[in-house]
Amino acid sequence: MTHTRISNQELTNFCRTIFLHEGLSAEEAEDSAEILVAADARGIGSHGTARLRRYINGIRQGIMIPGTQGRVLKSTPISTTVDAEGAIGLHISRRVMADAVERAAEHGAGLAAVRDSNHFGIAGYYAMMALPRDMIGIAMTNTAALGVPTFARDRFFGTNPLAVAVPAEQQPAFVLDMSTTTVTRGKIETYRREGQPLPEGWAVGQDGQPTRDAEKLLDGIVRQLGGGILPLGGLGEIRGGHKGYGLAAMVDIFTAVLSGGTFGQDVSDAGETAGRVCHFFAALRLDLFRDPKDVKRDMDQMLQALREAPPAQGHSQVYYAGFKEYLHEQECAQQGIPLPEKVWQELQEIGAEVGVTPPKPV
Amino acid sequence: MTHTRISNQELTNFCRTIFLHEGLSAEEAEDSAEILVAADARGIGSHGTARLRRYINGIRQGIMIPGTQGRVLKSTPISTTVDAEGAIGLHISRRVMADAVERAAEHGAGLAAVRDSNHFGIAGYYAMMALPRDMIGIAMTNTAALGVPTFARDRFFGTNPLAVAVPAEQQPAFVLDMSTTTVTRGKIETYRREGQPLPEGWAVGQDGQPTRDAEKLLDGIVRQLGGGILPLGGLGEIRGGHKGYGLAAMVDIFTAVLSGGTFGQDVSDAGETAGRVCHFFAALRLDLFRDPKDVKRDMDQMLQALREAPPAQGHSQVYYAGFKEYLHEQECAQQGIPLPEKVWQELQEIGAEVGVTPPKPV
Repeated sequence: MTHTRISNQELTNFCRTIFLHEGLSAEEAEDSAEILVAADARGIGSHGTARLRRYINGIRQGIMIPGTQGRVLKSTPISTTVDAEGAIGLHISRRVMADAVERAAEHGAGLAAVRDSNHFGIAGYYAMMALPRDMIGIAMTNTAALGVPTFARDRFFGTNPLAVAVPAEQQPAFVLDMSTTTVTRGKIETYRREGQPLPEGWAVGQDGQPTRDAEKLLDGIVRQLGGGILPLGGLGEIRGGHKGYGLAAMVDIFTAVLSGGTFGQDVSDAGETAGRVCHFFAALRLDLFRDPKDVKRDMDQMLQALREAPPAQGHSQVYYAGFKEYLHEQECAQQGIPLPEKVWQELQEIGAEVGVTPPKPV
Repeated sequence: MTHTRISNQELTNFCRTIFLHEGLSAEEAEDSAEILVAADARGIGSHGTARLRRYINGIRQGIMIPGTQGRVLKSTPISTTVDAEGAIGLHISRRVMADAVERAAEHGAGLAAVRDSNHFGIAGYYAMMALPRDMIGIAMTNTAALGVPTFARDRFFGTNPLAVAVPAEQQPAFVLDMSTTTVTRGKIETYRREGQPLPEGWAVGQDGQPTRDAEKLLDGIVRQLGGGILPLGGLGEIRGGHKGYGLAAMVDIFTAVLSGGTFGQDVSDAGETAGRVCHFFAALRLDLFRDPKDVKRDMDQMLQALREAPPAQGHSQVYYAGFKEYLHEQECAQQGIPLPEKVWQELQEIGAEVGVTPPKPV
């Protein structure tokens, strides 16, 4: 696939200017641009600037409301519950996670549940905010219902991602950032575009039975006819599908039930935007348990052992959560962020539409 | 399969008497018997009285040390780090989780990392201790290395279970209690006994390539030749195997890296016993975020919606995490706990060996 490389700085500047143009405050635009570009830099293109159009739509349709600071519903020394009241998800999430980190700095732990927010990009970004403070970071969000519970036929939970970041000393940090479904919708859409049959274990059709037909699956989802993506572990219980289903439910509970927000089938996408969603954030100081130096030394030992583990036949390297993304970041810092042609085209169109010069390729 | 049903009380009394005979204190024996039988009652036979022999071996070999109370290495208002010093895992885990619940009652959250402990039975038991106090309970443990990281060929992590329990008002509680591998060793052993090929996606052989040969797999594990069980999500990244691998690593980090215990390949079974392992426990008060009544009402709504969701073709009911186990508990309370013939035989043998009358079938 052809790519156009744009420097991190150029791409961030462009997105920030677009967001300012759409009415975001300086701080909202800064946070939003930074977090979108961070996704691209970490190689999670599905959550990066490829979504800029959807954010613009969300803002223009009044689903994402610039200037909204949200309302604290409850606060204790170690926790806060926030009604985001439709705020810019990327901005309020950064603010709430920063608050959780400060609570942890003072009391050891900081927890936050947020309701009625908007798409927050990559969960890993917020989890990673805890790393420089010698803390474990956790972030979750619920998303529009796409995943079918074990033995069911209709969608109930979203792809409900979960991120956990733990610092090391020498090695790049452990950063788990995973949806709790087998795959996300974007992957299904790629298979439809390419006219390929879906791999087994990804999805079920309207009767709850396995399907490999991406076209029919997406049609059934859009028309609310049933069917959807399978939880991590796949169909039934034989490969542990009920575990992925349980994790998806757990994310919905931590994000939406704790905050008093929308969960399950009531979370839905409004076409070209993302609907209101709920988040959960946590920061835990390493020194609640041990000297952070010792924890990070042991992290180094584990992560290095994994990197150096003998690979399976046909593979050249064992990775760990966050390591591939780290390598991608390093590459992007050197060579710029590789945007797929389709995304690059769309950014240029957006620029032309609102009268902002598109970023200069490297 | 033939079963012999024994009442919960009879089975608990028998186990307690055996444990007392093996030198456990009254409290150690009480906790151990209760938690083992709770596993049987919840339908998790692999972690119930079927393991009594292994506990006896562990005690006799000095791996599990009666009378050991462990040592607190660090304590803050919301956390504690404990060196179990080889204590009876079932007993010290119950004690440490009870302490976490009390810390949560006072400060909102209670966290605990435990090192150098022994097999603690079902993780769900400890998570559920938080339920009557209107708290979320979390429990994890690392276990002997059996799981092969994505793209690797050798075992690195255990089946590393994770449990999360959240109370509801009318509905049975949400209790996720899952290993982070596709399956556990017990399932592989069943396929070997029955001479059946393993389902695809369960395991890889010595070269890191898929295997369906249970005999060869277990032989390779015992002889340390490589190969093992795949993480939840299966082989490679196509169905999300890297996510299950990431969750297994997360459990090792929370249990062993935070506590300063043994992790990764250094955790191993000593034949007929379980080796020393590490745990993590947490309790979080619901009212950190909202009125517990409101949280539990919303939990009821979610859980009821799942129970009543239209099932897939060929299925009669959608469950949620903990619901099947709850139904099994109810059945056992009425009819007694169904022990497979092999387990019932072994309990009778143990009774005869140490001179304790075996429990009376219902």
